[in-house]
Amino acid sequence: MKFVKMEGLGNDYLFLNCLEGEPPELPRLAKTLSDRHFGVGADGLICVKPGQAGDFTMEMYNADGSRGAMCGNGIRCLGKFVYDSGLTRKCCLTIQTDAGPRGLELSVRNGRVAEVTVDMGQAQIDEEVYCQTAAGAFWVTPVEVGNPHGVVFCPEWTEEETARVGPLLEHCPRLGRRRNIEFLTVEDREHLTVRVWERGSGVTLACGTGACASFAAARRRDLCGPKAQVHLPGGSLRVEERENRLFMTGPAHTVFRGETDFLWHSETEN
Amino acid sequence: MKFVKMEGLGNDYLFLNCLEGEPPELPRLAKTLSDRHFGVGADGLICVKPGQAGDFTMEMYNADGSRGAMCGNGIRCLGKFVYDSGLTRKCCLTIQTDAGPRGLELSVRNGRVAEVTVDMGQAQIDEEVYCQTAAGAFWVTPVEVGNPHGVVFCPEWTEEETARVGPLLEHCPRLGRRRNIEFLTVEDREHLTVRVWERGSGVTLACGTGACASFAAARRRDLCGPKAQVHLPGGSLRVEERENRLFMTGPAHTVFRGETDFLWHSETEN
Repeated sequence: MKFVKMEGLGNDYLFLNCLEGEPPELPRLAKTLSDRHFGVGADGLICVKPGQAGDFTMEMYNADGSRGAMCGNGIRCLGKFVYDSGLTRKCCLTIQTDAGPRGLELSVRNGRVAEVTVDMGQAQIDEEVYCQTAAGAFWVTPVEVGNPHGVVFCPEWTEEETARVGPLLEHCPRLGRRRNIEFLTVEDREHLTVRVWERGSGVTLACGTGACASFAAARRRDLCGPKAQVHLPGGSLRVEERENRLFMTGPAHTVFRGETDFLWHSETEN
Repeated sequence: MKFVKMEGLGNDYLFLNCLEGEPPELPRLAKTLSDRHFGVGADGLICVKPGQAGDFTMEMYNADGSRGAMCGNGIRCLGKFVYDSGLTRKCCLTIQTDAGPRGLELSVRNGRVAEVTVDMGQAQIDEEVYCQTAAGAFWVTPVEVGNPHGVVFCPEWTEEETARVGPLLEHCPRLGRRRNIEFLTVEDREHLTVRVWERGSGVTLACGTGACASFAAARRRDLCGPKAQVHLPGGSLRVEERENRLFMTGPAHTVFRGETDFLWHSETEN
């Protein structure tokens, strides 16, 4: 079986070309391949399938085998995967995801995709919620960008504080449901710094939807302009508002191409 | 650049065939490739070079780019790598390592290596040392098997206890130098269970030299016979004593073959 490992801001996925068929038991395969010691190692598996409404369909599995709806870093990598592999020559694509269709604009340099812009749609922002936790009280802005986020405006913020406060807010009953939590420091009107606590995953290097949620919360308060750079521990994204929609631009890299008969091994040898 | 990722009991290494030349800056390459999010992901890099005294030379780098002397799980994988890649047809090999030469016996099934036995040489056992720590007092048996270990006999032992007590004993001044610490539960004369604290790495899935050190300490007290199975969190090894030498037998698996122009990418794109 052939695959490609790609990463966007350190969020890494294994890509399978499933345009002409797919391996059986994809959830189990995702779990086996994602294991970082016994398998190939990744945050998850993304299967590229034929598009129904759009050009391609993104079917995403997390490292534990569960289904993922959408991932901003993953879908940028998908854009590079389909173009660089010669599966399309188009630079504007519509990708079907479990969270609905997403538009991609590919920036091509020397015949390869260097950056991808994703139309993330509209952000839905609710009223701030006052959350009391064992680590103090926080005002949290609930934002939906395909998935649920809670944005906390704060001064400089560390990874340790994220690890301590993130899980308390993730489970705060006043937020209605479990959310990814973003700790947002507004540097100036064009620069935001964000630390992310992802529900189910903990502290992560970057979250594309979280960057967009943070931008939307800052924009609502008029703390930033219509374009901003969002700095995350894994790297930077650009977020732009056009006609009420959010467009996220960032890098995607091919780490390596691999081939394995690993599943056969693990069944017969272990 | 082509590479193969292999693992033994979950200890995973990237292998490079360097018989006819090697890439520049191996320490930096090891660090870049070993990164689990931005790189290929592994515990380290092993370069297979021509043998001077032996058949091949194992040049090993840890994930942080530092040089490693020997690794029981890594050298078993090396045996499978050179045979399965067609670099040798011999089943008894001598491998040059920074810790001296090591003999390998390859068990071949259906044309591929299924198991590898490593001649680990003689274990040197010193008098037990009484170590007082913040977590209580422990008798520790110092054992040298190419690298320094301290073995603690104990009843059932958990990962949490290993993480708590391991670092205290690693730095115990009475042990003379920093050692890997093995928490050994003797199940019966043929079965040992070991949890490993590796200096510099923390709790790990398995340590081949640690399995041998534990066996040697148990053997010295006549708590086991001349052959025993050693169970580690990542899997099992067999250790045998023949004429005062220790022979360790265990699995080695090829996870995948890969190819990358990644270094070029990271230099020009990032």
